[in-house]
Amino acid sequence: MNEGDLLRHIYARSRDLHGRLPILLGPGDDCAVLAPEGPVVVGVDQLVAGRHFDPDTTPVDLIARKAIARSVSDIGAMGARPFAALATGCLPSGFDDADELFDRMAHWASVFECPLVGGDIATSEGPLVLTVTTMGAPREPRAPVLRSQARQGDSVCVTGAFGASFESGHHLSFDPRLVEGQWLCEMLGDDLGAMIDVSDGLGLDASRIARASGLRMEIDSGSIPLHEGVTDWRRGAGDGEDYELCFTVRAGVEVPTLCTPTRVPITRIGEVMSGQGCAIRTAGGETIDASDMGWEHRG
Amino acid sequence: MNEGDLLRHIYARSRDLHGRLPILLGPGDDCAVLAPEGPVVVGVDQLVAGRHFDPDTTPVDLIARKAIARSVSDIGAMGARPFAALATGCLPSGFDDADELFDRMAHWASVFECPLVGGDIATSEGPLVLTVTTMGAPREPRAPVLRSQARQGDSVCVTGAFGASFESGHHLSFDPRLVEGQWLCEMLGDDLGAMIDVSDGLGLDASRIARASGLRMEIDSGSIPLHEGVTDWRRGAGDGEDYELCFTVRAGVEVPTLCTPTRVPITRIGEVMSGQGCAIRTAGGETIDASDMGWEHRG
Repeated sequence: MNEGDLLRHIYARSRDLHGRLPILLGPGDDCAVLAPEGPVVVGVDQLVAGRHFDPDTTPVDLIARKAIARSVSDIGAMGARPFAALATGCLPSGFDDADELFDRMAHWASVFECPLVGGDIATSEGPLVLTVTTMGAPREPRAPVLRSQARQGDSVCVTGAFGASFESGHHLSFDPRLVEGQWLCEMLGDDLGAMIDVSDGLGLDASRIARASGLRMEIDSGSIPLHEGVTDWRRGAGDGEDYELCFTVRAGVEVPTLCTPTRVPITRIGEVMSGQGCAIRTAGGETIDASDMGWEHRG
Repeated sequence: MNEGDLLRHIYARSRDLHGRLPILLGPGDDCAVLAPEGPVVVGVDQLVAGRHFDPDTTPVDLIARKAIARSVSDIGAMGARPFAALATGCLPSGFDDADELFDRMAHWASVFECPLVGGDIATSEGPLVLTVTTMGAPREPRAPVLRSQARQGDSVCVTGAFGASFESGHHLSFDPRLVEGQWLCEMLGDDLGAMIDVSDGLGLDASRIARASGLRMEIDSGSIPLHEGVTDWRRGAGDGEDYELCFTVRAGVEVPTLCTPTRVPITRIGEVMSGQGCAIRTAGGETIDASDMGWEHRG
């Protein structure tokens, strides 16, 4: 199957979308045509074989799922719902699973309600590289929720649990926090402060909220919710690949303990204060800089 | 410079855009936030070292330029003006020019009036892979111009000249036909039929219009405008990397010979008729299938 065939294949799968706003034209032309009815959030993410997944052991379906879900997770962190996505693949020469890969990306994009409306295929002598651009609509009036919107006294909160995502396989099967992001907007309104999706590590990503908001954040090490089998809070703070939400809630506002529609737990882990940086307080009373707990994609 | 620094660097360059609609929030958060005022066209393209440019001889500035210009060219072919772009880079380990590369991508994106509003960086053991997603606004009421909108009797026309783009370096320095695409919409209105940007080869791309429109196209070999030094029409039809527009004009409508604002020539090269496929008629009266004149990115 050549590029034309492959794009037609995606096109055929997406045909039934044409009647559904905001997609006026799906894949198959130079561009897709969309008709959003308000503000649009848009982000792009890459998935690289050998870096974000093990190409020798990961089924094509889960590679496709992760590529889409990573990008969708960014939409969730804005308090938005995704409505369309575009996917590219730079495939290693001789890669035999291109059809299945794009088929499954189209599938997962539909599952997350952002059908593929475009894409591009190339080949190289390097590893498989996928990119997914996702567009979404903020859940108004509160969204979009920015990293810079924390205030002094805010509670720092997270969804779900942290640590060992790569070993456990959670990084391939996580549910992007779409319902949770929108539910927080609806339940908390203006009492919802800043929000980010934790993909690089809780310490690093929380420190991004602190920096963007021009404030300091302190997290209690003992309160970081850990995945079963994870016992060291440092793994929760630094492993990354959690794809949970970290957000702040205004001072004095009660933090919900559960996202009711999905039963995903919510945990208060710290507080926003004046100053700068992000620190973790241990049970022993030590204060540890958390801003390098995680990994940047280049290092 | 790590990923955070690099994204902040792009962010700093884009700050002045925040006051300018439709960009409400530029890079630096999980997503950008845009406020388009009507339909949006969106496309994505890849640029792969060793495939779309020679990494040993191509200056970083021209790599950046081509990555942006290729994606922008798709927007032009819809009769739209670009307004925002997102760029990813999957960089070879040890790649030293990341700052300059993203700096120049941000520069060229601004030149083409689609400032970078987001991006992602990763590394791999493979070649440099860039992707650019560009969003644009169709020039209403005619645009978006689709591949499927040719009609029997339409003239087949092209902008500019064809052939030897790779050898001549034209593929690194071409001007995406943005003004031309919008000018055609304005001048021809509903007399403008289908349109595509010719990146893979005139024969192949013209046949995409024929197929999408369910019609046949015949091109006169002698009328294909060729770049200086190119003498064989087959090179004009099949070399690719031209980034010109191929479009159709309704039967009986005079085809302009020049896009007045840019002085780019326009040439009538053939006609749309009933049937299927795309054929080139030679001076000797031969009819040659043109649908494989060009190259698909996988093949």
